[in-house]
Amino acid sequence: MQSKLLHEADGKRTFAVILQKGDEAMRCLQEFAAKERLGGAQVTAIGALSSAKLAFFDWETKQYRPIPVEEQVEVASLIGDIAVGPDGMPSIHVHAVLGRRDGTALAGHLQEGHVRPTLEIIITESPVHLCKVKDPESGLALISARK
Amino acid sequence: MQSKLLHEADGKRTFAVILQKGDEAMRCLQEFAAKERLGGAQVTAIGALSSAKLAFFDWETKQYRPIPVEEQVEVASLIGDIAVGPDGMPSIHVHAVLGRRDGTALAGHLQEGHVRPTLEIIITESPVHLCKVKDPESGLALISARK
Amino acid sequence: MQSKLLHEADGKRTFAVILQKGDEAMRCLQEFAAKERLGGAQVTAIGALSSAKLAFFDWETKQYRPIPVEEQVEVASLIGDIAVGPDGMPSIHVHAVLGRRDGTALAGHLQEGHVRPTLEIIITESPVHLCKVKDPESGLALISARK
Repeated sequence: MQSKLLHEADGKRTFAVILQKGDEAMRCLQEFAAKERLGGAQVTAIGALSSAKLAFFDWETKQYRPIPVEEQVEVASLIGDIAVGPDGMPSIHVHAVLGRRDGTALAGHLQEGHVRPTLEIIITESPVHLCKVKDPESGLALISARK
Repeated sequence: MQSKLLHEADGKRTFAVILQKGDEAMRCLQEFAAKERLGGAQVTAIGALSSAKLAFFDWETKQYRPIPVEEQVEVASLIGDIAVGPDGMPSIHVHAVLGRRDGTALAGHLQEGHVRPTLEIIITESPVHLCKVKDPESGLALISARK
Repeated sequence: MQSKLLHEADGKRTFAVILQKGDEAMRCLQEFAAKERLGGAQVTAIGALSSAKLAFFDWETKQYRPIPVEEQVEVASLIGDIAVGPDGMPSIHVHAVLGRRDGTALAGHLQEGHVRPTLEIIITESPVHLCKVKDPESGLALISARK
């Protein structure tokens, strides 16, 4: 994982975070957010992965249903956000669209992404933090704009 | 619908707009853009929906062909923009990629999205407005950078 | 191709670049980046195409495998970045998710996109440049955050 500060003004920073072959995307984002103390940020990326774990939130069981991806895929879209979780740590939420060899697409909540050869991430910090609160109905920690 | 101003400088504001179970995404975006008088903005979001109406613009008939989505889906990508329509009101244009239970993806123009449990939207305002003009060939109101 | 400067502050500019029927997206982005001397930028877009060339990077052969798209499609997501290539020229890297008539999605690296009727692109410049370096293993020029 390499990073570069692209812009800074009024407490708002923009970073490029460049992942390399073998890096795991969610762990790297977690580490970077903790190191830079990001409590509110927007994330976008493109690149490619050698394998991934997507997931689908099953509303009936209130659990994530795993969707393993055991092949090289293009990261056609990665969009996410960083907030402060109920435990006070950065909480990273990322969704991705992956393109297969034949051009068909897979999409879902990203749990793991094993980079090969690159993932080019842009993170735009917000000076105001986003806070997550446990939602009793879904059991998930969701962003609340009231906090 | 909850919202939070994340950043403001030089006439440019960034908002988090957080939708909750039962909110309809396009109506909420329309309401928020009218309330905040947004005439030029970029929109991204992730979250999940209990159902949606996507559409495909059919170039032969010059009409949107409906693609109903009657199942819980992840919003893997939502990208859009806000401009001033020919009637002077905010015109919201949103495309989305939706992930199904098995990880397959649906994609198109978003007409309706019924949120469950959350849709985390980031709106970045531009101090310069974008204006739409009716395009005679397609019959659509399209952004013109000349106005 | 039309363009409009939406915001400028601290050496960071945001542009709307609006493509019209018949424009080819990658050539227009290349021309625009050269004209505005963009050496670090983030790109997002939505719109529609009459045809496209997607590609998948085959890790075995280290070559892009073409995925021709010979039909009208919605550009449900387009995300990319602009860096300085090893030759000193702007290097444009774009991935896209395309929605077909029946709502199914195609995804991959965008090599060509023939616009119909519009492609609404937002380009956010970074005052700090991103530089590409040839990666010996993949043979690709990849962004390095160390340069």
